[in-house]
Amino acid sequence: MPVAGDKIAVVLLSGGLDSATSLAMARKAGFRCHALSFDYGQRHKHELEAAAAVARAGGAHEHRVAVLGMGFIGGSALTDLALSVPRTPTTGIPITYVPARNTVFLAVALGWAEVLGAQDLFIGVNAIDYSGYPDCRPEYLAAFEGLANLATKAGVEGTRFRVHAPLLHLTKAEIIKAGMELGVDYGLTLSCYAPNEVGRPCGVCDACRLRAKGFAEVGVADPALI
Amino acid sequence: MPVAGDKIAVVLLSGGLDSATSLAMARKAGFRCHALSFDYGQRHKHELEAAAAVARAGGAHEHRVAVLGMGFIGGSALTDLALSVPRTPTTGIPITYVPARNTVFLAVALGWAEVLGAQDLFIGVNAIDYSGYPDCRPEYLAAFEGLANLATKAGVEGTRFRVHAPLLHLTKAEIIKAGMELGVDYGLTLSCYAPNEVGRPCGVCDACRLRAKGFAEVGVADPALI
Repeated sequence: MPVAGDKIAVVLLSGGLDSATSLAMARKAGFRCHALSFDYGQRHKHELEAAAAVARAGGAHEHRVAVLGMGFIGGSALTDLALSVPRTPTTGIPITYVPARNTVFLAVALGWAEVLGAQDLFIGVNAIDYSGYPDCRPEYLAAFEGLANLATKAGVEGTRFRVHAPLLHLTKAEIIKAGMELGVDYGLTLSCYAPNEVGRPCGVCDACRLRAKGFAEVGVADPALI
Repeated sequence: MPVAGDKIAVVLLSGGLDSATSLAMARKAGFRCHALSFDYGQRHKHELEAAAAVARAGGAHEHRVAVLGMGFIGGSALTDLALSVPRTPTTGIPITYVPARNTVFLAVALGWAEVLGAQDLFIGVNAIDYSGYPDCRPEYLAAFEGLANLATKAGVEGTRFRVHAPLLHLTKAEIIKAGMELGVDYGLTLSCYAPNEVGRPCGVCDACRLRAKGFAEVGVADPALI
């Protein structure tokens, strides 16, 4: 049970650069952070290992992994081994889009928040240097916030849930700069959609390219590549 | 891949009386029905067996069970064995409320619908003879429909998702009458929150009471009790 006066947040944590920064920002804002990751059949488990390391280093109060057994849905290169992760830029919403992923993630986060007595959810989505996923847009996040208040017992009883997306309007370089100031160890993070067997990034997928561009703009080496 | 002209729906199916009727209504409306159940740590598995039987008897095109490993959330008498299912009527939103359950269920259904090329979701919620859960209210369902269009690639590309709740404004007796006309075999369904080891309903929980009242009003015996 929460102690009166505690500011509690559920923080979605993928193990990537963005969510690591989002966690640091939530901590900086004074929240006790309950980090939440998902094992949803993504093609590699290295990101869950990265998430655990980031949660520890980033001062999360606890870190939980929700297991979602819904591989029958298919349809994304991130969960369907029959589909390849693109190694060159594509146009439109890419095949790495996972249908309704952020809606599922935020829904589980909402349920946990309600039980914890939290009204704040943090998600590291970004609408600037991003892959064009529809569920990373500001209008989507605003709609989820409205839904959360209608969906829950807490909402009926007066809680106003907030979906914080502190990276939403930052470039990747701005995210990295902000995170470095907050002491984020980006060496622990993994952004790649298709790392090799030991978890080394491929360097050519969309996520790797956006990350490399960000570090280049900041003018520092990516510690995960050293 | 869907065949042109197919009307495809994802139908949430719990194994209870309401969702069995919702499936029959979706079939009657001409939809090819992809039934979806959830193994979310509910205290008994009899309802998943009932759901499979209902899907077969109800003419579902297929039936899938998504496994949600998020028991760490706790907080509901339906998933937390440390909490008891009330055996007498309570006031307010009862302890059987599962935090954000319908939001999680609809989110997964939405992801599957997108991959199937479906734009119709059926959910058997009811705002008359129900347990007072916030995520069974019309305003909640309307908000989810709006969210679905923002959340998805299909929505961005012009699909208008619809959340059908054909039982929303029916009494339990009206639901039973409608289902009997459509040939629903209520003997296969299980509504009870706390059945015994062999899946027999307890007769005293909220769900059992609402069901008994419905059959009494229709003036027929509940075939599941014969």
